[in-house]
Amino acid sequence: MSKLRVNCFSLSLDGFGAGPHQGLDNPLGVGGMGLHTWFVPTRTFRKMFGQESGTTGVDDDFAARGFENVGAWILGRNMFGPVRGGWPDESWKGWWGENPPYHSDVFVLTHHARKPITMEGGTVFHFVTDGIRSALDKAKASAKGRDVRLGGGVNTVRQYLEAGLVDEMHLAVSPVLLGAGEHLLRGLDLPALGYEMAEYTGTPGAAHYVLTKKPR
Amino acid sequence: MSKLRVNCFSLSLDGFGAGPHQGLDNPLGVGGMGLHTWFVPTRTFRKMFGQESGTTGVDDDFAARGFENVGAWILGRNMFGPVRGGWPDESWKGWWGENPPYHSDVFVLTHHARKPITMEGGTVFHFVTDGIRSALDKAKASAKGRDVRLGGGVNTVRQYLEAGLVDEMHLAVSPVLLGAGEHLLRGLDLPALGYEMAEYTGTPGAAHYVLTKKPR
Repeated sequence: MSKLRVNCFSLSLDGFGAGPHQGLDNPLGVGGMGLHTWFVPTRTFRKMFGQESGTTGVDDDFAARGFENVGAWILGRNMFGPVRGGWPDESWKGWWGENPPYHSDVFVLTHHARKPITMEGGTVFHFVTDGIRSALDKAKASAKGRDVRLGGGVNTVRQYLEAGLVDEMHLAVSPVLLGAGEHLLRGLDLPALGYEMAEYTGTPGAAHYVLTKKPR
Repeated sequence: MSKLRVNCFSLSLDGFGAGPHQGLDNPLGVGGMGLHTWFVPTRTFRKMFGQESGTTGVDDDFAARGFENVGAWILGRNMFGPVRGGWPDESWKGWWGENPPYHSDVFVLTHHARKPITMEGGTVFHFVTDGIRSALDKAKASAKGRDVRLGGGVNTVRQYLEAGLVDEMHLAVSPVLLGAGEHLLRGLDLPALGYEMAEYTGTPGAAHYVLTKKPR
């Protein structure tokens, strides 16, 4: 069964998945980079950007698991870029340069239609304007039996959680405080939505939790 | 300098310090016992209740630190017992039997006056009706230069945090989901209140974080 998965989703101890004031200068919000210090030094992360070496161990194992058996991605509009409202032109093509680290179809949720963008390395950005279930259907079709990874951001993950559509979610709680920003779990009753704690490992970099949805 | 400290305060991954429906049958709320599985097997916890043996290591080190240099305690009314509103009589003397694990003056916050209760082992429960600052002043006077430990519960810790009066706070995030109950940090901007991350250690039992308040 193809799953919808969230992986390597970093939170502050106070529950924020991004800091306040996101924008071109602060894609992750103010202080948001501090959420990812467990991830950035790993071999998996460095390899995504063509770099050699990097750390191995549990943090890297979680990073690597995030890319295993992934056939398509879904991203929220705000994760794709800082542009809000209608697209002023076709110039914005994501944060990741000409060869983004997805190497598959990527379905971007937006209220504003736009033609697909074919990037290097097999990544194609598709813009989906008819909702989260439609994006999931399209992504599953594209993934051909492999899993679909939901990249974020916070608001998008919340929408899929509330709809009970996320099958597995790996959260990494980093030892930082943000105080404000986008809170992932506020107001969500995860056990009532069918989620349970499947796995926990503390590393020096972060506390890793894997939640799974009970079979319907 | 005598500090006001929170130690061994357990939270679920979703941020709850107690489950819903607290009462005589569920002092920690439904599911709340699951928050403390890192703590209960430790040598320190077992010794509190006169038992031999128990685990040693990082979890026990955190448990033991919680009792070092503590000269007095502060507890919220709901942590002292399940009685709400006025005291119907003098019969309720806490959850802990004749010899509670405090062995010092304990200042219980309440809106309902009551005479002090002297227990075995040096614990004396005092009932403070004129607010959190008054309780802190009384506890500091009693502690004679040692620290004051704020035992909880969630609402009481939140009040002291909001007032910026907690100097140090050790939180232990347990690998459980509660979904509902009393949320410790909701709506609190800890960095704005002067708190910063001082320490983090992940153990197989919990993820331990120590927050400290920057000097005023």
